[in-house]
Amino acid sequence: MLRRHLIAALALASSLLALPALAEQDKPTPTAKEILAKSTPAEWRTPDPQNLLLMQLPTGRVVIELAPDFTPRHAANIRTLVRSHYFDGLAIIRVQDNFVTQWGDPNDDENGDKNRIRSLGKASKTLPPEFTRAIDPKLPWTALPDGDVYAPEVGFSEGFPVGRDPASGQEWVAHCYGTVGVARDVAPETGSGSSLYAVIGQARRLDHNLAVAGRVLEGMPLLSGLPRGPEPMGFYAKPQQRVTIASVRLAADMPAKDRPAIQVLRTDSASFAALVEAKRNGHNAFYPKPAGKVDLCSIDVPVREAKPAP
Amino acid sequence: MLRRHLIAALALASSLLALPALAEQDKPTPTAKEILAKSTPAEWRTPDPQNLLLMQLPTGRVVIELAPDFTPRHAANIRTLVRSHYFDGLAIIRVQDNFVTQWGDPNDDENGDKNRIRSLGKASKTLPPEFTRAIDPKLPWTALPDGDVYAPEVGFSEGFPVGRDPASGQEWVAHCYGTVGVARDVAPETGSGSSLYAVIGQARRLDHNLAVAGRVLEGMPLLSGLPRGPEPMGFYAKPQQRVTIASVRLAADMPAKDRPAIQVLRTDSASFAALVEAKRNGHNAFYPKPAGKVDLCSIDVPVREAKPAP
Repeated sequence: MLRRHLIAALALASSLLALPALAEQDKPTPTAKEILAKSTPAEWRTPDPQNLLLMQLPTGRVVIELAPDFTPRHAANIRTLVRSHYFDGLAIIRVQDNFVTQWGDPNDDENGDKNRIRSLGKASKTLPPEFTRAIDPKLPWTALPDGDVYAPEVGFSEGFPVGRDPASGQEWVAHCYGTVGVARDVAPETGSGSSLYAVIGQARRLDHNLAVAGRVLEGMPLLSGLPRGPEPMGFYAKPQQRVTIASVRLAADMPAKDRPAIQVLRTDSASFAALVEAKRNGHNAFYPKPAGKVDLCSIDVPVREAKPAP
Repeated sequence: MLRRHLIAALALASSLLALPALAEQDKPTPTAKEILAKSTPAEWRTPDPQNLLLMQLPTGRVVIELAPDFTPRHAANIRTLVRSHYFDGLAIIRVQDNFVTQWGDPNDDENGDKNRIRSLGKASKTLPPEFTRAIDPKLPWTALPDGDVYAPEVGFSEGFPVGRDPASGQEWVAHCYGTVGVARDVAPETGSGSSLYAVIGQARRLDHNLAVAGRVLEGMPLLSGLPRGPEPMGFYAKPQQRVTIASVRLAADMPAKDRPAIQVLRTDSASFAALVEAKRNGHNAFYPKPAGKVDLCSIDVPVREAKPAP
């Protein structure tokens, strides 16, 4: 029985349902795997190595794509920190259930050793907030049709989930699962990128109040499947509870052969549109009543290992 | 610096912001802790021990409140299973990242030993679906004001996040974080409660396609902070990867002194309304621009340990 759960729920859970706009309602719809199998090479992009961070943990690799079109100064400062090997030997300091996993310098805390706080080197300690940016009509935009509780308009741009407010003319990357944000002090300009967090739960309320550095493309389970910290906000109480970061590198600084061969489905592609429609109206025997809607943070942007060059 | 993150983000992250409807915008708003400190005893309820499940894991206790007003036959069948100690020695079989953690009989799987599948005893193997119920005007209802992508109306009833469709006259418990659902086979009536899942991620698309058993009141981190399974849908590949369930008991079957002294804030109370408004319009120095909105699944219903009787 469970095996059949498995098959049915696989179609359901991993949003592998697809429904062409005019498909007969009685016919099970193709899966995401089938949609992606028909995708063209041009529908996939290889992230710029200047925007690709590799964070090596004892448990594996986390790959993050920076969002310089939304937060250029933060992307630049994070590159500077990474190139100085700032994050090497630092740690995951906080896992707050249903909210965020945060990493940075454990000594940069009241309980830490102030004398051992790591220098940011050539990187800036403060940055202009970049919480939002003026809507840029030159950036690709794939609007979602079902609305959003928080933003007047939502959709995808360059692979990122984005909220927009035509009234203010501003847009911002939304705090969906996998979004990487910049921790900061109370003052808006105090975020430097030296402490980052990944969204593992409900965090849309952070939208346009913090700068978004980018999105996790690979390795989310290594950040979401950690024990929650016992202290307020999920901080770990003892150093040995923290996961140590072996290293963080920029793909551009690695030999080409060592770079992650990752491709991301373009969010302005026909195949992505088919996946969104699948999420909305996909149906099969297990799941006869499709939601008919999909919310911004329930859409996963597909990532794949690129085929090695022939 | 991180310490100040901590304080600021505490107000932010744990949704401890509160803004009375007419508060001056320039004044930081009271925290949830302050709102709850002013709550009255009558605003808290003690769940019926007949609806309170205690699942003992090696890592601690998970407390689940059943939702018999929404799924009475499932609640009754789960009580029958628990009273036969059905779950004792079974396991968490699946953790799918950003979706669900599921527990049940590991042998009820293609890779399991069919000869060792545990009997459901006096419990039914199938049940009427109970995916939705007719809207009952006698049940308490606290509507949320900011809309929802999936349901025409959303709010809280008896502590549960609920979606409603006035057109169909139906309502259902929504698949928010902490909601406990009934795994089933392809056929709608094949859910018995012998395999349950807790929502740890984006799962609203399951709404009104599966029966909801109840909600986790305590111990979510013990279910959400587990390593994700390597198999499709997060199933574990090896038995030793599974967390074994020591026991599941019904509070009503325990000596009163051993029952969890848990109270839940009434979702039709003034203090709950204040917390919801705090989520919507709370602001402080860290968080100057409140969202002004809140979505159904971002609202936590407070749970506390009851003071021991004098």
